[in-house]
Formats: sequence, C-alpha cells, structure tokens
Amino acid sequence: MTKLLALPVKMPEGWLAENIQSRRISVVQLQQDDGVARRIIAAIKQQIHSGGYRPGDRLPSTRAFAAEWGASRTTVTAAYGQLAAEGYLIVRHGARAIVAPGLEMPSVEAPAAVAQPRNVSAFARRLLALPAPAEQQPARVADFRYGDLSGADFPVLAWRRASNKAILRRGARLRYGDPRGSAVLRNALQGYLWRPRGIGCTPDRIVVVNGSQQGLDLCARLLLDPGDSFAIENPGYLLARNAFVAAGGIAVPVPVDGDGLRTDALPPARLAYVTPSHQFPIGGVLSATRRRSLLAWAKATGAYIVEDDYDGEYRHDISPIPPLQTLDADAVIYVGTLSKTLSPTLRLGYLVVPASLARAFAEAKRLTDRHAPMLEQDVLADLLASGAYERHVRSIRRKNAERRAVLLQALTDHLRAGVTVAGADTGLHVVAWMNGIDSAGEPAIMADARAAGIGLYPVSPLYDPTEPRPETAGFIMGYAGLDAEALRRGVAVLADILTKHR
Amino acid sequence: MTKLLALPVKMPEGWLAENIQSRRISVVQLQQDDGVARRIIAAIKQQIHSGGYRPGDRLPSTRAFAAEWGASRTTVTAAYGQLAAEGYLIVRHGARAIVAPGLEMPSVEAPAAVAQPRNVSAFARRLLALPAPAEQQPARVADFRYGDLSGADFPVLAWRRASNKAILRRGARLRYGDPRGSAVLRNALQGYLWRPRGIGCTPDRIVVVNGSQQGLDLCARLLLDPGDSFAIENPGYLLARNAFVAAGGIAVPVPVDGDGLRTDALPPARLAYVTPSHQFPIGGVLSATRRRSLLAWAKATGAYIVEDDYDGEYRHDISPIPPLQTLDADAVIYVGTLSKTLSPTLRLGYLVVPASLARAFAEAKRLTDRHAPMLEQDVLADLLASGAYERHVRSIRRKNAERRAVLLQALTDHLRAGVTVAGADTGLHVVAWMNGIDSAGEPAIMADARAAGIGLYPVSPLYDPTEPRPETAGFIMGYAGLDAEALRRGVAVLADILTKHR
Repeated sequence: MTKLLALPVKMPEGWLAENIQSRRISVVQLQQDDGVARRIIAAIKQQIHSGGYRPGDRLPSTRAFAAEWGASRTTVTAAYGQLAAEGYLIVRHGARAIVAPGLEMPSVEAPAAVAQPRNVSAFARRLLALPAPAEQQPARVADFRYGDLSGADFPVLAWRRASNKAILRRGARLRYGDPRGSAVLRNALQGYLWRPRGIGCTPDRIVVVNGSQQGLDLCARLLLDPGDSFAIENPGYLLARNAFVAAGGIAVPVPVDGDGLRTDALPPARLAYVTPSHQFPIGGVLSATRRRSLLAWAKATGAYIVEDDYDGEYRHDISPIPPLQTLDADAVIYVGTLSKTLSPTLRLGYLVVPASLARAFAEAKRLTDRHAPMLEQDVLADLLASGAYERHVRSIRRKNAERRAVLLQALTDHLRAGVTVAGADTGLHVVAWMNGIDSAGEPAIMADARAAGIGLYPVSPLYDPTEPRPETAGFIMGYAGLDAEALRRGVAVLADILTKHR
Repeated sequence: MTKLLALPVKMPEGWLAENIQSRRISVVQLQQDDGVARRIIAAIKQQIHSGGYRPGDRLPSTRAFAAEWGASRTTVTAAYGQLAAEGYLIVRHGARAIVAPGLEMPSVEAPAAVAQPRNVSAFARRLLALPAPAEQQPARVADFRYGDLSGADFPVLAWRRASNKAILRRGARLRYGDPRGSAVLRNALQGYLWRPRGIGCTPDRIVVVNGSQQGLDLCARLLLDPGDSFAIENPGYLLARNAFVAAGGIAVPVPVDGDGLRTDALPPARLAYVTPSHQFPIGGVLSATRRRSLLAWAKATGAYIVEDDYDGEYRHDISPIPPLQTLDADAVIYVGTLSKTLSPTLRLGYLVVPASLARAFAEAKRLTDRHAPMLEQDVLADLLASGAYERHVRSIRRKNAERRAVLLQALTDHLRAGVTVAGADTGLHVVAWMNGIDSAGEPAIMADARAAGIGLYPVSPLYDPTEPRPETAGFIMGYAGLDAEALRRGVAVLADILTKHR
C-alpha cells in the first residue's frame, strides 16, 4: 500500500473544489462516520491500483454498493465523496460514479519473485516438471498452428437458433443432470457414431466430456497408477502424453511409420494411446494387419487401448476404415471430439467406453465436474437430431478439402523438390519435411518466419525426449484456420525464408 | 443378432410387393452386389434393434449415406430397398426413407451381467467403493432437494442477448484459450469478487472452472497424496468428501456447531475443507474467533484451506463477513460458483488461488480439459461488465428471501414445537430437526413423503460413516426451486405424514 501515497494524480486546476461544491459532497460528514467508510475507501483505492477498476469504469450505484456491503447509503455516498475529493472518482448527480480518467496506474503486479509452490502433491510436482507450452498471438500473415479452425466456418445461424430454443426450453427446475450427459444427446450421438463411423453402442456406454482432453485425462486417472507403463506413438500428441505422465505413467515410446504405429515394437504396458485413423502428427493410417496385431497385443497383455479419433471426419483420398472400437468394444476406449468440426472453444467431446467401465467413467465424470454444460448439450443434440450437424460436417469437409488442395499446390509450386509432404490423405494438417535442411535449423527458421508474420510449428518437440529426433527439419502445417490467399502467401514467404537456410 | 429373426413385423397385406413395384426397387440388383450392401443392411438393422433408430425416424438421404460410407449411391439405394422389402423401412420417392412405424422393438439391452471392471487404477477402485447416489425424478407436489433452482428465475432475456452477441463476435480464428479462462472474464470476476465479497486479487490468480466441483477436484489432485489426511466438517458436503477420498485422502471428520467448524478439534492434516459463510448442511457462520484459529492452525501445520463459498450471495438477517481468503491469501483456496445464482446446469465456477499455486492450477486445468467453454465465458463476462449479473443477484436474492419467509412461516404454522430450524440466516436451505422423532425413522418418513409427492432429504447421510449420527430425525429443506404455493402445500403434507410417525 506504500505505492498508494505516491500515485500521481493529475486533475485540472480547481477540479477538487468544484466537485466538492457542485455535488455537495461533505468531507466533514465522513470524518464523523465509523470505520466502514474508511474500509470502503481503502478497498476502492486498492482495486483502482490493482487494475480491478480502470479509468472510465462505472462504479455500482450507492444503493447497490450499500446493499452489497451491508452499509448505509449515507456511508457509501460519503466514501464516494471522499474518493472524488482525492481525485479517484468523478461523481455526477443522478448518474453512477466513474473512475477518474486522468489516473496514471502503476503496473498491476511486480512480475518478480512468485513464491515456489509448497506442500503440493506428487501429481502437481509431475505436472510442474512438464515443459510449459509457449503461448503466442496468431501470426499476422499466415499461422499454420494445428488445431485452429476458421471462425467463418462456424455454423452461426444454426447454433444460434438451437441455442435460443434451448434457453427457452429449460425446465421448471434447474438441477444437476446425468454425469454421462443428457439422455437426448447420448441418443443422438448413438445415431451419429453409427452412421458415419460404424460404431454400434447403447447410450449407456457414451460419456459426454468437455473436449477430448477431458476424455484422455479420465482414461489416465481410471486406467493408470503411478509407475505403470503406457505405450504412446513417437512422435505423438503431447497433451495426451502429458496427461498420462502427470497421472504417474511411464511413457514407452513406440515408433510410427507411414502405416501408423509399429505394432511389432509394442512393449508390455497397461495402456496404449493411438490415433489410428490419422496418426498425429505424421499422418499414417493404421493398416488392417496392424489393427489386428494391436488388438491381439491388448488381449494378451490385458491392456486397454485409447483410440483418439480426433479428425476422423476428414478423409480426402481414401475409403473410410472403421474405428478399432468396432473390432473390440471391451478393450478400446473411443475418444471423439467436436473441436475439429465445430470449434475447439466449445469444449465438447464424447467417449464410447467398454460396458464394464461405464460406471467408473460416469462416477469419475461426476466427481470431476458433475456433467458437461447443459445448454451446449441441448444445442448439440438439436443439431444432431435435425441433421444440421451432418450437413455442417459435409460442408466443412468440402471447405477443408479445398484448403488442403491449395496448400499442397502452393508447396509444390514454391518448394518443389525441397519439400516432402506426409500425411495428406486425411485430417486438417500435413507434415512438410524440408529436404536438405537440418532439424537443428528449426528454431532459426521459426524465428525468421515469425518475424515475417508466419506461424510455424516444428515436428521435433513431439518426439519423446529420450529418443533420437529426425535429422531433417519438419513442420506441422495446419490449414483449417486459413483462407486460400493466406495459404498461398504463407507458403510463398516461407519458401523465401527457407532459401536463406539451405 | 438372434433376436433379429424373431422380430415381429406387422405390415399391411400386399405392402411388400407394392413397395417393390411402385418404387422400382430391384431385389435382383442387390444379390449381384458385393458385401457392402449387406454390411449396410446389417448395420441399419442393428441400429433399429438397439434403438439407435426408432419407428418414424428419418434415415439420411442415399447420397449422404453413400458419401459417409464411401459406397456408391446405387448400393445404398439397393440396401434401403431390401430393408423396405423386409419391412424395416418405408422408402418414398423424393423423400428420405423412414423407419417403419409398425415395428415392435425388443428391449434395448439386457440389464443383467455387466462385466466387472478389470485392471483399473487405485483411483477407480476408491471411486467405485463410494456409495452410488440415488437418482430420482423431482417429486410431484414439492421437492425440497437442495441445489435445485427455479427455471423461472433464470435471466433468460439477458442471457440470450449476451449469448447471441458472443456467437456473432467470435474471432476470425477459433483456437484454444487460456486455461485459467479468458482475460476479459477474469478481469470482470476480479471486480465482482471485490465488490460484494471484498476479495482483492489480480486476475492471474483467478481460474475459471466448470463449477465448484471441478475446483474441489483440482484441489484434491494438486494438494493431496494417497494416504494424506484431510480435515472435513462433520456433517459436511458429500461430493467434496468424495473428491478428496477418491484422490486417496483419509477423511478426518471435525464436528460443527452453530458457529461452524469446531476449530478446537482440528487434527493434523494436509488440507481442511470448510464452508465458513454457511456451514453445509447445518448452517452455522464461522465465528471471527474460529476464523483466526483456523488460519493459525494452517500456518502452524502448513496445511491449505479450501474455502467453499457456495452460497455466499445469500445473506438474509446478518451482516456480510469477509471470506477467509481476505485474511490469508497464501493459505486459502477460495471456491466460488454460479450454480446458486444462475443455474447448476451451466457448470461455471471460479477459484482464487495463492500466487504460489497459480501455475499449478492453470496447468492442471489445461491437462484436465484445456479451459472452460468460451461461449459461456463470454456471456458471463458480458453480464458482469454490464451490471446485469449483479442486478440479477439482487433480484434472485429478494425472491429467495421471500421463499425462505414462506417456508419458515409454514414450518411454524404446521409443525410448531415439533420442529427446530437451523441455519436459516443465510443460504438457500434450512435444516429442520423433527423434535421427538428418532433418526431411525427417516427412511420410513421419506418413503411416505415420496408417495405423497414430497421429496425429502435427510441430514444423516452427510455425517461421516465412522462417527455417531444425530438421534433426532433431520431434513435438509432447499427452497430455491419451489414457489410459495408448493412450499406451503409441501410443509402441510409433510406435517400430516409426521404425525403418523410420532
């Protein structure tokens, strides 16, 4: 609170006196009051200093404020008056007080010396030992970050219509729902899972989750104990690996090739995490032979398989392959998401779990957060039932097939033999290996790209830290968030940058 | 699939031949086709049997279906035709096929013999050992279930307006957000936490969670290891206890009285869970002396305090008491919720965490489910910034004060000396002790009440199973979901029932 006294307040000459007179604020009245007004004053000042209130912000009315604090309105009026006299507020008759616009604020908080966490769990220590992801603003010209979708593709009208219906249709009583998700949504998902994906399951084996990440975390908690091994694709999806590692699992990396996971290299483990319909990030589709040997491995070892079908809706040049789940419903936990078709910001996904695990997943979901938000559930159920969701999927699939064609053409035009593209058959990204450029050069290329407005994301951090990384520089290029123009410009700029690094 | 053949199909005489002829469906064509049509037929039948498609449901168009399955349209048309011939579907020229309305369905799934879960984690085993909560439909006349709100109290117009704005305002790119919640919402919450509750904190210590339950679960994971003791109020909130027990914590029950937690009985523990502003369920407000000794205990033992301010917005007859968090921001994790002011179905809450734990909570939230749904966050931020939320809180507080008055009056009128009411100063429920009735009579009273359309919830299951339960029958009576008429009728019916049990 020492900074408080040093606050430079710059108000026009005569402002203080004028305010006190014209608004008839009585400074004397405050001095006769008890400690409540003083506490209110200190609290408001602290909020202004910490940025809780910013210059120009309106304060609550004196009546509302008095009700909240259990104080008299006179006390609050006096406190506001004192703050106006000190130059913190501008009070206007018949309008709500505002924070004085002239105030120069000190910085919100010294960034230094945050105390180390004390007395936390082993889970927390494992979590904090994981590398912290770098957060960056989207690059200006073209950001190839995988996972982003274009805002223009969101089905605004259909969502809004269904959302307004759901808000009006709320029940007479608002009460906690089924932890697995509403019966209506699970029935609709049953149909959806079957039609495009061939998954036949009863609704009591479906659990609606807050995005696939929650599904993976529930698998980690329910199926792994600290010290247990889990098999994971190398390279593979980092947030899956992290969820299992934070739960205490020991990662056993299994190499992948153009046909997905190398099942001949599967170690003994309690669980395997796989992306059979589009290996992340390399892009292979798990072959039929390997599917059979993966399931045989699970049967022999008693392991569970977590099947992440993260972009199963996007198949471009190839026929659909039914999910692993359709071949062994007792060993496979199927993880689906709406993040690649609607929006990653919605946080909606679903699991299909073995019947023997249905209760464990339901109770874990209940303890974790009761259930997924009901409004979102109702909206999604409506879109599924009306067919609007499947129409949207067909439309966004077409749009992304066009983006993919533009990206592939641009890579061919600008980089020719300098690039080898992998994993373009399905999904929303490709991997571009930059022939003749050493992977040690990735950070410098990324920095140059970022300076030129290009967001570029290397493959190498997705390799297990204990395993060798590829020799050639490679980048994951997501295209679902970019329009044709940005894709072409992005690749052109990237080609220029790469020539400097060869 | 044996049941399939036994399916009784009742269609009008001549229907089959007529359909085949008039729609020119070629049964011959199908027989020449490869296995795809047969697989489609089997899959559709299975879905009809399992209830995935119900009588009258429309199937996808043959074009859409063919696109999904990677089959030719001819094949799908032939499959639909065969199913029509067998009486499963009705196909109409120029319209989508529907499931035949005459079909009598077998039951969805035999409820028997679900396999026991195999090879699950210690967490899962602890979870499955917890008593499963009984799910019941709301009682017809008056359901006193605590936690329900009235659907009529939801601010439909304000929510819809803000929601439509948020949908339109989505960014050019849809991408994962900050795990702690959007900066806009955390800034708005900072102001809200300060104004009514006096909590001064910077937004980087706020974490938006999916309801308070997720906040409790994150505390359990980050602050407890298996085998650690945690102190918890007895009786207390069951889902908090369960979250800590599932994480491996050992519950050490601490008695409560009219002033809340008996801090003189605090054991050594790694964490204490408390509801200081309104002890759940008994209703005491933690006295100032006990607040000091609780914090002194935490300082001496290094324990964290989880402060659940679940209905801090509802104070009826008493002055506000600042949360514990305002007295020691390094030892207290403050848990807030929107479930008692907006809706339990929204799944929105927030934590204020010590600065030293901010990164651990943020990273745990990221691994758990990335972040709270963005649309809900945007809507709440809008309602907070516009003042609409605080206006709503004042309005719903007034409505609930009226409900409370009606309930208390009805209890006095109908039960007189037969009831002792506790915990009515704050919150959305009271505890009604039924003088002269033994707690062993609770189940019979509940059954009679349920038969008469009254939902009644006893206090005794909220006591630690290892500790003695109260001798007198007591019920938690939530009133926020009921109107005045239901409250009066509910108490009148209850009084009649009780006379039989005295």
